[in-house]
Parts: sequence; structure tokens; C-alpha cells
Amino acid sequence: MKQFMNSKESLVTEAIDGLVRASGGALARLDGYPHIRVVTRADWDRSRDGGKVALVSGGGSGHEPSHAGFVGKGMLTAAVCGDVFASPSVDAVLAGILAVTGKAGCLLIVKNYTGDRLNFGLAAERARAFGLKVAMVIVDDDIALPDLPQARGVAGTLFVHKVAGALAEQGASLETVAAAAQAVITGTISIGMSLDTCTVPGSPKEDRIGTGKAELGLGIHGEAGVEQVDFSGARAAMSMVVDRLLPHAGSADHVALLNNLGSTTPLEMSVLAEELARSALGGRIKWIIGPAALMTSLDMHGFSVSLLPVTSEQVEALAAPVSPPSWPGLASFAEVGVRPLPDGLTPIQPEPSSHPQRRVLLAQCCNALISAEAALNALDAKSGDGDTGSTLAGASRALLARLDKLPLADPTQLYRAIGMELAQTMGGSSGVLLAIFFAAAGDASASGKNWIGALSAGLDRVMQVGGAKPGDRTMIDALAPALAALPNGVKAAATAARAGAEATAKMTRAKAGRASYLGADKLAGHNDPGAEGVARMFEDLAS
Amino acid sequence: MKQFMNSKESLVTEAIDGLVRASGGALARLDGYPHIRVVTRADWDRSRDGGKVALVSGGGSGHEPSHAGFVGKGMLTAAVCGDVFASPSVDAVLAGILAVTGKAGCLLIVKNYTGDRLNFGLAAERARAFGLKVAMVIVDDDIALPDLPQARGVAGTLFVHKVAGALAEQGASLETVAAAAQAVITGTISIGMSLDTCTVPGSPKEDRIGTGKAELGLGIHGEAGVEQVDFSGARAAMSMVVDRLLPHAGSADHVALLNNLGSTTPLEMSVLAEELARSALGGRIKWIIGPAALMTSLDMHGFSVSLLPVTSEQVEALAAPVSPPSWPGLASFAEVGVRPLPDGLTPIQPEPSSHPQRRVLLAQCCNALISAEAALNALDAKSGDGDTGSTLAGASRALLARLDKLPLADPTQLYRAIGMELAQTMGGSSGVLLAIFFAAAGDASASGKNWIGALSAGLDRVMQVGGAKPGDRTMIDALAPALAALPNGVKAAATAARAGAEATAKMTRAKAGRASYLGADKLAGHNDPGAEGVARMFEDLAS
Repeated sequence: MKQFMNSKESLVTEAIDGLVRASGGALARLDGYPHIRVVTRADWDRSRDGGKVALVSGGGSGHEPSHAGFVGKGMLTAAVCGDVFASPSVDAVLAGILAVTGKAGCLLIVKNYTGDRLNFGLAAERARAFGLKVAMVIVDDDIALPDLPQARGVAGTLFVHKVAGALAEQGASLETVAAAAQAVITGTISIGMSLDTCTVPGSPKEDRIGTGKAELGLGIHGEAGVEQVDFSGARAAMSMVVDRLLPHAGSADHVALLNNLGSTTPLEMSVLAEELARSALGGRIKWIIGPAALMTSLDMHGFSVSLLPVTSEQVEALAAPVSPPSWPGLASFAEVGVRPLPDGLTPIQPEPSSHPQRRVLLAQCCNALISAEAALNALDAKSGDGDTGSTLAGASRALLARLDKLPLADPTQLYRAIGMELAQTMGGSSGVLLAIFFAAAGDASASGKNWIGALSAGLDRVMQVGGAKPGDRTMIDALAPALAALPNGVKAAATAARAGAEATAKMTRAKAGRASYLGADKLAGHNDPGAEGVARMFEDLAS
Repeated sequence: MKQFMNSKESLVTEAIDGLVRASGGALARLDGYPHIRVVTRADWDRSRDGGKVALVSGGGSGHEPSHAGFVGKGMLTAAVCGDVFASPSVDAVLAGILAVTGKAGCLLIVKNYTGDRLNFGLAAERARAFGLKVAMVIVDDDIALPDLPQARGVAGTLFVHKVAGALAEQGASLETVAAAAQAVITGTISIGMSLDTCTVPGSPKEDRIGTGKAELGLGIHGEAGVEQVDFSGARAAMSMVVDRLLPHAGSADHVALLNNLGSTTPLEMSVLAEELARSALGGRIKWIIGPAALMTSLDMHGFSVSLLPVTSEQVEALAAPVSPPSWPGLASFAEVGVRPLPDGLTPIQPEPSSHPQRRVLLAQCCNALISAEAALNALDAKSGDGDTGSTLAGASRALLARLDKLPLADPTQLYRAIGMELAQTMGGSSGVLLAIFFAAAGDASASGKNWIGALSAGLDRVMQVGGAKPGDRTMIDALAPALAALPNGVKAAATAARAGAEATAKMTRAKAGRASYLGADKLAGHNDPGAEGVARMFEDLAS
């Protein structure tokens, strides 16, 4: 068993219970398990509400959310569920009809399969014997098999549910609702394509469609397609589907329904929507329903396109709001709205300015890190890929080379400029973290913090964004105590940084950064290279 | 390639265009493809609407509908999309922030992955340098790896989007929205289970999870689960998930979010919903979101459960209406509403009554068909399974045995009773069709039709429901001309039926029924056995 179910026999009843339970009281089911599996609107009372036409649909299970998922105000009044891919019994259909039909009568919406036609048909006769008004329409939208005298009913059924549902909700008569449903059926065409078959619960998957192949015009019960075609991507796939639809499509404005047959990812479905828009049919599609899973074939990796040339009344009916959350709504199939990029993405280069003291300090920091390159690389090699020294030294060299271009006289601008420089030259997580450090320091400086306060604000932000804190065996273990000691002078800061760096040698469980993936044996007895670099830099400044 | 895409490189941009196009103008995207992939509310103008807090989320693609599918009124203002399973760039995030943030500021909702934290974090700093108010929260709801210092962010992110979205929509300050988001994060726990890995576009699928196995506590990027477990069905699977959640869950009322990780069918998801209700946690789950695909991992065949103990304010925020159709809404996790079966399923046995003439006629029809048994079987054997004669004879014998119980004096009741009898004793499509024939005849008789009119109404209904018409090589080819000739007497009817039956031998293309699957060579030169049976019956009556 490779499905989340308990048994093939209990699958449908348990799924219906889950559906009804998660509906928040919107749905109910009839008693009579396991033979009678009927989902109804919980808010529908045939004595009170039966002045409106009831809509009953159903058929084999395995096409969810069809049909039980479309029970609700504005769509179906009840759905009769068979076993997976098997028609429900006459008694089950009759129970559904009797449960919801009032004096306005009931329309049965049936997909064109012999079992469904017969069982719904006989149930309709029985219901009529009780004096109920019952009409039935047969959906036959599939164009895959042009020579088949009785075309199958597939995803176009949703157009029928929705248009009939809107009219019934408005209080139209059974004759009007049935005629509107029939008009939709007459206009609707559908065809599907899949890269794989579906997995019928309890049965092994039929491995029918090879690599590089797709099936065009397949049924929703695993029936083979009319042909296997070469599959070379979404554009060619949609083009083949559109080629089949085109001869049947008029020049009117159409609604398209883009249906996910099961396991096609939303990414793929969105690509297919875009390809449909760019296809030879695109110009005639004014509205779209989906992409969404509406009439599935279990977990089939495929899609189908249904088309309906529409009148304004049909558009209104398709657009009317409904209760079932599975209905994706009708949307205009619009141009892709593209908005201009906002200003500010290309940072304005700050005006260079001079500040001899800061220039010396900055150069000293850079040179200290450049001197430490080999030592830090060696430390890093014990627990990482041995490049911490080179990364810091490389960034320092780049910064040195930019000293003349920096706005040295303006601390706020200077911090930000250093941050930008490091983001561009340092690469990797450490580059981003240092960029965040200096950017946040610039921010704090702009809001009036002195330089120690600004650097501390930078540290706070790095800890928040990076998720590391003192004790996690990172650069922070030296930087945090150094900044805390800075009010007492650079010597005090250097002492604190050194103590912090030495302490990392005893931290055998890194909690952040790359070293968090390493065991204690790789970490014990040597300092974290980032913390060591910070300590060396402060020691250099203090010397 | 086994995906509906054109290339790995164009997958995300084409999918975004499809999403935006099918949104009916609700969504827009920023310029700047391929590097900048930002989806925004089309109705949002930061100058006009920026008095409300903007919500920006995003991360790697492959989790659809997260996050672009949740852009809309009441949820996200913008989503920044990376490549599949890869963080978007700092520039892309910055573009998203700048595009939508007004004077009320912006909250970044980031899942806890290093790349996302850093890139969103640095973009936030850059945006702050423009004077924008930007806050950031990190979602870390995954409990699969209790020892991991930084828990991953998974489907619980949706709670954050929704609660923060509702508050932002109400005009709450950035501080209030960020604090509410953080409170949700603090309370949320999640864990997932899967029967299979996901298929990363352009890469072969890792075949890691064997038959009979499942992975518990796996990530949303194909990261292996914390353990492989034996899989024995939906109940045991949900029980293992619940066992992991239980130690973290308090006694408060919870909202559960039941997430489809990709290709789990709606049937399975509904079964899992039911199992969640019946689990040890069921009593503490008062509301449910889903089951629905909210935070997927491409096509992963799995699910996750997220739990949040909620205050009434949070429930209100989770229940507030939103625009994005991907949001399934909040529902109470209710008892399954079961309604009693309607009356009428067990048909009332009609009172027997006598009518010697009709009794003789009926018996004669039955005996004619019993006499024809072997001949009809032989005819059927040429194009079918050779049982037409036995089927008709068996039903005739059953009807003969019931003659004393039939309401012979009341034509309406008699037709209906024959229909019920045939439905019960004749299996298969032909039994249902004859049952429909007699039920419809009863209906017509009730509305005042004479017996020929009643039988003709029965025939019309059979043609509608069964989809066959004269010329399709069925019983109808004899029955229709016989009924048409009946006003001229039984002899005329018999002649017409015989001519009709003989004509079927030339119908080499059956359009309905089982024979429609057969080629001309199997059909030419011999009569359809159903039509032959009808002809023989009328000939017997006329003799």
C-alpha cells in the first residue's frame, strides 16, 4: 500500500467523513454507510428550500474535489459517491434525490458513462413515481475520440455545475435550469494530456507511458489516450492540446477551464496557463477558471483544457460567488501586469570625503586581517574548508583599494559604504552577515548613536538575522565582549576579544554556522577562526 | 524531462507569468526578469495604501501556492520568489520591499533557512537605509529535529501570513503586527510525513523511501526525514505524527493546519483529516485549515500537520476573509453531520389485484421469451457472450412466478411493479434499461396516457437514458417500429418488429451497447439478439 488510506473498502466512506468534518458544518451526509454515500448541503431543507431547484451529481469517486467538494450554496445540492471509478447504485442516487428535492424539482447532472446514465436514470424514474419533478442532463464534453458515438464526460462538467447552480440559486424553474445546463453541454469541449497513469488504490500502477512520452486524449479513469506522443516540454504539449481543440472552437469569446488531473505541481500548472495564453487559442480565451484541481483522476500527472464559448448570461453565472472552497472562481485571462522596478536598487555611490584618523584606523584593521590570513586558514582547516583567513584578507584588500572612494568624513555613510563593499566582495554567509553588521551600524549612526552604540546595534542585528549568540562558537564570541569593553578603551576590548576567542576552543557544540554540522572531536582544543580573527584585529589596534 | 515546463531556467518566471495572468488582474509582478521575481498585489499603491503595514514573504520556489499564491488582500502584499528550493537574492527582496512599503512600514516573514535569513536580513538593512520601517520575523515551526538549534520553517508559516495579514488589513501598527506574528511563531509546531521524495525539476528522483516505508519529520526541500518508519496505513501514519506533536501541545483549544505536501490525492487527505479527528489530539482541535496544498514540496506524496493553540483574537484573524483563492478558510472541526435516510428507498409492495386478460397477455409474453432462450443465446454468441436469451428468459420466469402478487388491475402500478421486478432479477445494463422502460411507462400512465402512449413514453426515456436510437443495432430497432404500428393492431406490430429485427443484420456499426466495441465482421449477417427477442414476442402475441 502506497496510499494514505486504511483499506480500499473503507477509503470512500472515511474520506467523505473527513470532508464533511472539515467543512465546518457546511456539509452533511446521509445515513446508510457503506452502500449509501451521499453528501448534501447541511443548510438545505427540502421542505423549506425546495422552492429552488436541487442539483444532484456524482459518479465514481477518485475525481475529487468532484463532486462532493462542489456541494454548497450556488453549486450542487447533493453528490452521490460511488467506489473509486465505479458508479453509485440506483438506491444511493435515489436517496440523494429524495433527500434534497422539493416542489421545484431536481436536475441530475451525469457524466456520459453507461453505468452512471443507467443508475441515475433509473433512480430518476423511481423518484418520479413519488411525484417529484426530475430532469437529467448528460455531459459529453470529451473530444478525444471523435468517432465514439457517445463522448465521455470529463472536466467540462464543472461548467454545467456552476451555470446550473447559479440559476438554481436565483430561483429559476427546472425547465430553465435544465435548458441552461444543456446549452452549456452543447457548447463545451475538453481534452486532456498526461505524462503518467494514475495509481488506483490497492492496485499496482500501470507503467504505460514511457520516458519522453505523453498521452493525449486520455480518460479520467486511467483509460489510455487516443495516442502516445513525444513529449518535449510544456509549450509543445499545450500546442498539441490546442490543435485538437481548435477545429471545434468558434470565433466567440471563450471561457477556458484549466484542470489539474492530480499530481501536476502548481508550478507546472502555472506554466501551462501561460502557454495556453500564448497559444493559437489564447486570443479567444477571455476568462479562465483555474489552473486548479477540479476533475482529477486520482494522482494522474496531467492536465486538461475545457472550452466554452459564452454569452454574457453564462459569464455572469460562472462568476457568481459560491460557498465551496474548492471552486477557484472565474478570472479574466488578462495581460501580465508588469510594474516598474522601484528606485533604490542601484545604490547611489556616496561622495568620497576625507578623514585622516579614520582612514588610518580602517587601514590598520584591514592590514591586521591580511597579516592573519595564513594563521586563520590553518585554524579553519581543522574544522572547515580552510578559507576563513583568505576570505577576510580578500575583503580587507578590496576595502584598502577603495579607501579613496569612501565617504570617510560621514560615519553613517561610511558604515553603509563598507557594508555595500563587503556584500559585493566577500561572498557567502559571512559576507552577508558583515554587510548586515555595517548597514545596521549605519542605520544606528543615522539615528544618533555614537560609534560604539552603532557597532553594538550592528552586532544585535547580526545576532537576530544570523540566529547566533555568544556561546555558539562564532565570531560573535570575540566581537560581543570586545564591543562591551570598548567604553574602557581599545586595550580592554582587545583583552576581552582574546578571552572570548580562547573560550571558543572549549565550545564543542557549535549551534550556528557551518561548524554546527561537526562533532565535538573536530572542534575541541582550537579557537573558532572568525573569533580568532576579531581578537587579532583588536590586539593589533591596541598594540 | 517528466515535467510540464520548458526549461529549468525559465520555469519560475513562466510560472509567475501564468499565475499573474490567471489572477484576473489581482496580481502584478515587478519588472526585472530573470533576477527579480516579485509578485505584488495589483491593487496596492504604496503611496495610497502604505498607511497599512505591508507584508513581504518568499523564499525558494517549489512550495506553491506559497508564497506568491497568498498575495492578496488580507494576506501578503508581495512575495519574492527564488529558483526552486533556492533563496532569492538580496536585490530581489529589496525590490519587493521598496515596491510595496509605505509609511506604516513592512514586515518580512521569513522561514528559518540560512540563505533566506541572510538575504532578507540584508535587504531589510538596505531598505532601512532609505528610511523605511522594516521588521522581520523568522518562522521555525518544525519539531522534527528537537536537537537542531535552529528549527526549520515549514507549513506553520501560513498561520503567520494569515494572522499578520488580518491585523495589517485592519490598520494595526508595524509593532503590533510583528508582535502578533511572533506570538503565532512561538506557539506553532509542525511535522510532516511522506511516502515518497519529491521530483526536483531537471533532476532524477531520489528513490530513498522503499515499499512499505514512510519518512517522518522530513523537510520541504527533499531533506531526509528524522527516521524511516514502517507504513501500514493512514491511521498508524497519523498516529505517529500525533505522537510527535503531543508532547509539545498544551491543553488549550488548537487550530490545526492539514497540509498536502504535493501529490497526495484529495481522497487520502480527507481520510487523514478524519484520522486526525479520531486521534489523541482530536479533542483539542477545535478549528481546521484544509486539508489543502498550502506549503508543498513540489510533487511530494506526503502531508504535514501544524498546530497552534489559539486566543479568540487569533481565531478571528484566521477566520477573516481574504482574496487569494488558494486560502481554504478556517472551519470548525465539527462532528460529522449524519442525516436520516429519506423515506421511499424501500418501495411499498403494491396490493395484488386481478385482471384475467392482462394476466394472460403478460404470461404469453414471458413464455414467448422463455421459448426463444436457446435461439437468442445462439445469436448472441456470434457477437457477445451468448447470454441474451438466458437473461430475458430468467427475467420472464421470475415475472411468471410473481404473477399472483402483481397489481394487475391498475396499469400504472402494474408497469411500476414490473419495472421493480426486472431491476431486481435481471442484472446488467439491460435489466436497468427495461426497468426504466416500465417505470417511465407507469409514469406516463399515471398522467393519463393509454397503454400504447405509456409504452412509447417508456421507449423515449430508454433512448434518452441509454443513448441509443433506431439504427444503433439494439432492441430498439424492433421495439420502436412495433410500438409505432400497434395502433393498427398486434399483427401489424409483429410485422414491423420482424422487419426491424431483420434490418439489424445489415447494421455493421453498433453505436450503443456492448456490440459497439465490435467490428463489422462480427456483426454482419445476423440479427441483434435483443431485437430478435422483441420480434419473436410480438409474433407470438399475433399468432
